[in-house]
Amino acid sequence: MSRAEYPVYLQLRDRLWTWIEQEQLCSQQKLPSERELSERFGTTRVTIRQALSQLEAEGLIFRSNRRGWYITPERLRYDPSRDIGFNHYVTEQGFSPRTETLFKELTEMPPWLSEITGLPVGTPIYHVFRRRYVNERGLLVEHNFINPAKCPGLLSESTDLSIWKMLKEQYDLVPDHRDIEIYPLALKGLEAESLNVNQGTAGLYIHRLSFDQEGEFLELDREYWLHDALKISVHVGSRH
Amino acid sequence: MSRAEYPVYLQLRDRLWTWIEQEQLCSQQKLPSERELSERFGTTRVTIRQALSQLEAEGLIFRSNRRGWYITPERLRYDPSRDIGFNHYVTEQGFSPRTETLFKELTEMPPWLSEITGLPVGTPIYHVFRRRYVNERGLLVEHNFINPAKCPGLLSESTDLSIWKMLKEQYDLVPDHRDIEIYPLALKGLEAESLNVNQGTAGLYIHRLSFDQEGEFLELDREYWLHDALKISVHVGSRH
Repeated sequence: MSRAEYPVYLQLRDRLWTWIEQEQLCSQQKLPSERELSERFGTTRVTIRQALSQLEAEGLIFRSNRRGWYITPERLRYDPSRDIGFNHYVTEQGFSPRTETLFKELTEMPPWLSEITGLPVGTPIYHVFRRRYVNERGLLVEHNFINPAKCPGLLSESTDLSIWKMLKEQYDLVPDHRDIEIYPLALKGLEAESLNVNQGTAGLYIHRLSFDQEGEFLELDREYWLHDALKISVHVGSRH
Repeated sequence: MSRAEYPVYLQLRDRLWTWIEQEQLCSQQKLPSERELSERFGTTRVTIRQALSQLEAEGLIFRSNRRGWYITPERLRYDPSRDIGFNHYVTEQGFSPRTETLFKELTEMPPWLSEITGLPVGTPIYHVFRRRYVNERGLLVEHNFINPAKCPGLLSESTDLSIWKMLKEQYDLVPDHRDIEIYPLALKGLEAESLNVNQGTAGLYIHRLSFDQEGEFLELDREYWLHDALKISVHVGSRH
């Protein structure tokens, strides 16, 4: 792409990012308002917004509902081959985790879940929907589908901490094996709303299906992450 | 979100997707033109395009340059903990891989790469830039940075096949360990152009850094994937 074809908002994106680096704005620090930025860079609000949206798509800044633009913190690392719980890997990296239960219910297994678990449609199933925060930024929402036959009474406990820990400590349930799938997707519907992002915003999906030693269905997690929040990190081979 | 707030283009997205499912359009099959679709669904071209863009963001359809819209094939599976080469896992899943070298050169190690490899800035380094296809759809572009001290003359060979295989069979080089990072990102610049997508389109980034038994830098791969092409798939625990 020659300079002549390089759009104005992308030129502005580069000037804006250079300025942010020079100012040494750090993680979760607030940017000046759009009005102030458009004055500083001698451009219109429309162009400033295009440049900010570009930096957002690149995961360098994020928008906090009605409160302005902020510098994105470094991505959290997650190793699916190690597969430890959220609270564990967040604290291990020096951050503060928090979980908020948005709803929980005893419901009936829908057809799509029946296909995955091998259990009949209509089988009772616990469904918990939670939002999880790192350093008070909401990074993901998560649907947990848990087999109540394995852990009756689970829903009467608080689900604001680790469900894995509860399953282990109170029901002696440790998953024998899990299948994990991870891919980018567009956040929409309930998940987009609960993360305060526009419908269709880029996100990352993690699907984690766990079975017990008898090969019976224990739990399914479906996590919807902001696109800029997580990186998958795997070490293969000998340790050095 | 109540029905009243549900935007028209999202309602159309649902009708469009229901119709596609009923018609049983399959992988890589072409959709009718935008003009035909807007007539069929009694709506404007603008709304049809919004609905199509939504399905594209969800990874259900993709656009092929100037040739129209197509049904996205199922995602390719990649297991970073297993970490086998592209040609291997593509063929294993019953698809046809192809690789096209876009450029290759002997250059000097830039500062960012020096930081990663521990080798001095200016050290000679091979740089290969390739586009890779599955069933003739270009899914990713890849930068390979290879240490020429380990494999002198590599660039005089064809790089349209597996570089891993060349390193192994011709130079007896097998990586001792690799660090792999994967995260969503916005495709831009050369990578967006080479994949024929708009600047800022959602994508998936894979970074694979390999060292030999002496702990010396062997190779860095930086892969830029279309957002709808790949899923990370990991099995943890016992095999059932």
